[in-house]
Amino acid sequence: MEPVPSGGSRPDEPGPCLSGPGGTSQATSAYSLSLARAEPGCGVAAVLPAGGCGERMGVPTPKQFCLILERPLISYTLQAMERVCWIKDIVVAVTRENMEVMEGIIQRYQHKRVSLVESGVTRHRSIFNGLKALAEEESNSKFSKPEVVIIHDAVRPFVEEDVLLKVVTAAKEHGAAGAIRPLVSTVISPSADGCLDYSLERARHTASEMPQAFLFDVIYEAYQQCSDYDLEFGTECLQLALKYCHTKAKLVEGSPDLWKVTYKRDLYAAESIIKERISQQICIVMDTKEDEEHVSLLEEMLKNELKHVSVTSMPLCYAGRDLQQVILEQCYNFVCVHVMNFDFQGTQKLLSMLEESHLSILYPIVVVLVHFIDYNSVPFGEKMENLMHIRELAKEVKKINILLYGLLIYYPQADLKLQESLRQGATIIAALIKERNSGLIGQLLVA
Amino acid sequence: MEPVPSGGSRPDEPGPCLSGPGGTSQATSAYSLSLARAEPGCGVAAVLPAGGCGERMGVPTPKQFCLILERPLISYTLQAMERVCWIKDIVVAVTRENMEVMEGIIQRYQHKRVSLVESGVTRHRSIFNGLKALAEEESNSKFSKPEVVIIHDAVRPFVEEDVLLKVVTAAKEHGAAGAIRPLVSTVISPSADGCLDYSLERARHTASEMPQAFLFDVIYEAYQQCSDYDLEFGTECLQLALKYCHTKAKLVEGSPDLWKVTYKRDLYAAESIIKERISQQICIVMDTKEDEEHVSLLEEMLKNELKHVSVTSMPLCYAGRDLQQVILEQCYNFVCVHVMNFDFQGTQKLLSMLEESHLSILYPIVVVLVHFIDYNSVPFGEKMENLMHIRELAKEVKKINILLYGLLIYYPQADLKLQESLRQGATIIAALIKERNSGLIGQLLVA
Repeated sequence: MEPVPSGGSRPDEPGPCLSGPGGTSQATSAYSLSLARAEPGCGVAAVLPAGGCGERMGVPTPKQFCLILERPLISYTLQAMERVCWIKDIVVAVTRENMEVMEGIIQRYQHKRVSLVESGVTRHRSIFNGLKALAEEESNSKFSKPEVVIIHDAVRPFVEEDVLLKVVTAAKEHGAAGAIRPLVSTVISPSADGCLDYSLERARHTASEMPQAFLFDVIYEAYQQCSDYDLEFGTECLQLALKYCHTKAKLVEGSPDLWKVTYKRDLYAAESIIKERISQQICIVMDTKEDEEHVSLLEEMLKNELKHVSVTSMPLCYAGRDLQQVILEQCYNFVCVHVMNFDFQGTQKLLSMLEESHLSILYPIVVVLVHFIDYNSVPFGEKMENLMHIRELAKEVKKINILLYGLLIYYPQADLKLQESLRQGATIIAALIKERNSGLIGQLLVA
Repeated sequence: MEPVPSGGSRPDEPGPCLSGPGGTSQATSAYSLSLARAEPGCGVAAVLPAGGCGERMGVPTPKQFCLILERPLISYTLQAMERVCWIKDIVVAVTRENMEVMEGIIQRYQHKRVSLVESGVTRHRSIFNGLKALAEEESNSKFSKPEVVIIHDAVRPFVEEDVLLKVVTAAKEHGAAGAIRPLVSTVISPSADGCLDYSLERARHTASEMPQAFLFDVIYEAYQQCSDYDLEFGTECLQLALKYCHTKAKLVEGSPDLWKVTYKRDLYAAESIIKERISQQICIVMDTKEDEEHVSLLEEMLKNELKHVSVTSMPLCYAGRDLQQVILEQCYNFVCVHVMNFDFQGTQKLLSMLEESHLSILYPIVVVLVHFIDYNSVPFGEKMENLMHIRELAKEVKKINILLYGLLIYYPQADLKLQESLRQGATIIAALIKERNSGLIGQLLVA
């Protein structure tokens, strides 16, 4: 693992219950406030079974520990849960062998309100262990028994606050609730000889997904009552509540984001989704106070290139506070523009601020150092020196998860040629931000 | 759309029934031969319903026409079907509005044995239209009625020959057969009030996937008999064969590859899988006859960087025949090494051969032009000229779907430093091949 910046903590999510990167900050804030008002006024805890071994994935690492942008999948799920401020405790059930790995993940990514228990040999036994830890009667318990408990999978990283709130609210009313999704394939039942026995009407059935929520007493009672057969072969918590507590779970329509990372292709999909989410906002920082026309043009072209992306630009000299705000709002993409000089001071300042913010603990930050120059006016020696400097700097900041690239934009007098250079520059910046490729850090690209 | 190389056709797939890129060529050939021996000695046709509008995808383009590496998804599925030489006709049902788009796709990607019919308003009606076209009794039919018909989705591009053979063989014996996969989620049935009614035992149910195969007379009879209700609301062809022809379909376990592209995340996954498949083989071409030690070192490091990748190297002067062979085996990645000179002739020769092969009609080809140089020994003017030349060339060959990048590898005398440069060079080449990013073409990278 790479070194973690020591002595600081990652920035808190802004607002009471921010839904994380992806949404525009304004919309998210308003939304969060309304959620905060609707916050269930009771103790809510969550249990995440994470004892699986990922045999379906076809890779040796259990899927919850597979890396996405160099961070284990389960850390994304924990991030999704812990940003919901009204979830008081998050209990993760892991195997004894993975206990240490999991402790390392919690420490490295600074997860909060997370506790570990040992998983059982099946999913149901793992959940039961999590519930036992939360139950008051356990001696030395550090928890207070919650009114409602959420059960969620460690491998469903994209769960949003609104569906969590919906299942919790429904659980308070009905005793149990779970997210559902329409079936993608028709479900059939084979006969003993491997032939079709019958097929189910797709419209009358649905897929049971996660999260689910229960009145704690209902689901705990169900687990205490249920048979060994249930604990060994059962797959559905809602079914246990129905069978042992006669509690009919309310079904809540979930979004497609709730899907479970099951196969290798799901890891690919998750990586692309995460990359897309952290590429929604770009901050352009300039080393000049004046409005530079070509910088505004670059901004326009970037918006064009990366659709639905918000781009803000600001002069670096005034940037202290504004930049802090941008960092707080979790912008993971910076373009640092130097006009007609090879001064690295502006970039150094930005990099220091980013390092201090610890923002890159969760996601790699892209910084593109842009120089507008007229090739012919710069002596070769200076250019090579410049290149070497960027490479050294890139190697250095890679250690704290910042991906630094250099970009020269040809800056001739002729307007048409400049437009073409800017367009090419925007394409290159967009490519670097989209791919977030650490193999190309320190390169000096040319537009 | 980009211009299509005119006057030539894309290379035929080698061997009788090659399973396409991804498998090692040797293993695939042996396998193909065994399949060829097992080839069903009867008329087999396929029907692909492709009239859907992709409302689940959340994008305006119907999902079968969404682009992956700039090529529509349905073209990948057609490629998977047409490489199976014993499938005589492939009938695609598309909406009247998309007929022209589809004809354009067939022409541009040179698909063979593909015919179009108009789709109906539901999936079942589209399939029925395809079957009618294949039935002998249709007047002016260009088809002969097949003994067995395969039904497959246009949005399942990764179907392999072995599962097609299995369902066809089983259909000949049982009258009907279909691929199945284990359920990922538990299936439940809601009651009228939106609460859980019952949950199905996961072990006793399974997901019905595609491909399916039928004796033509069985499925055609079933479609002729079935009710309007079935045609409007039914989803399962196996069920029609059971209900109207009392044919119990044989269920065949499929691989995870059979999954259906349904959501946007599935497009991301498909793109990553395709990129991975075409990155399995790299050919290093050199402009020298001698074995250059550092080229072998680079080869080793590339193998290390891109695991499970086969790397072959050959001197360009002898390469005519061998290179043709590599191209025939559908290698999509070339590293063109120039030692101590700035001659572009070797690269030009390779690019011409690639253009003539029309290999890039199906996938973008990556060519990395590597120069081993000692920075200090090359005058600046020459270097910039070199850079400009690569950019011009890259722009030119992008038109025929070749992605050209330049790479300078620092070539000092000291052994340790050279090793470091080579390692960095391998990392950069691997990144370029993996990402296949057209935004960075024409760049001169430095290791």
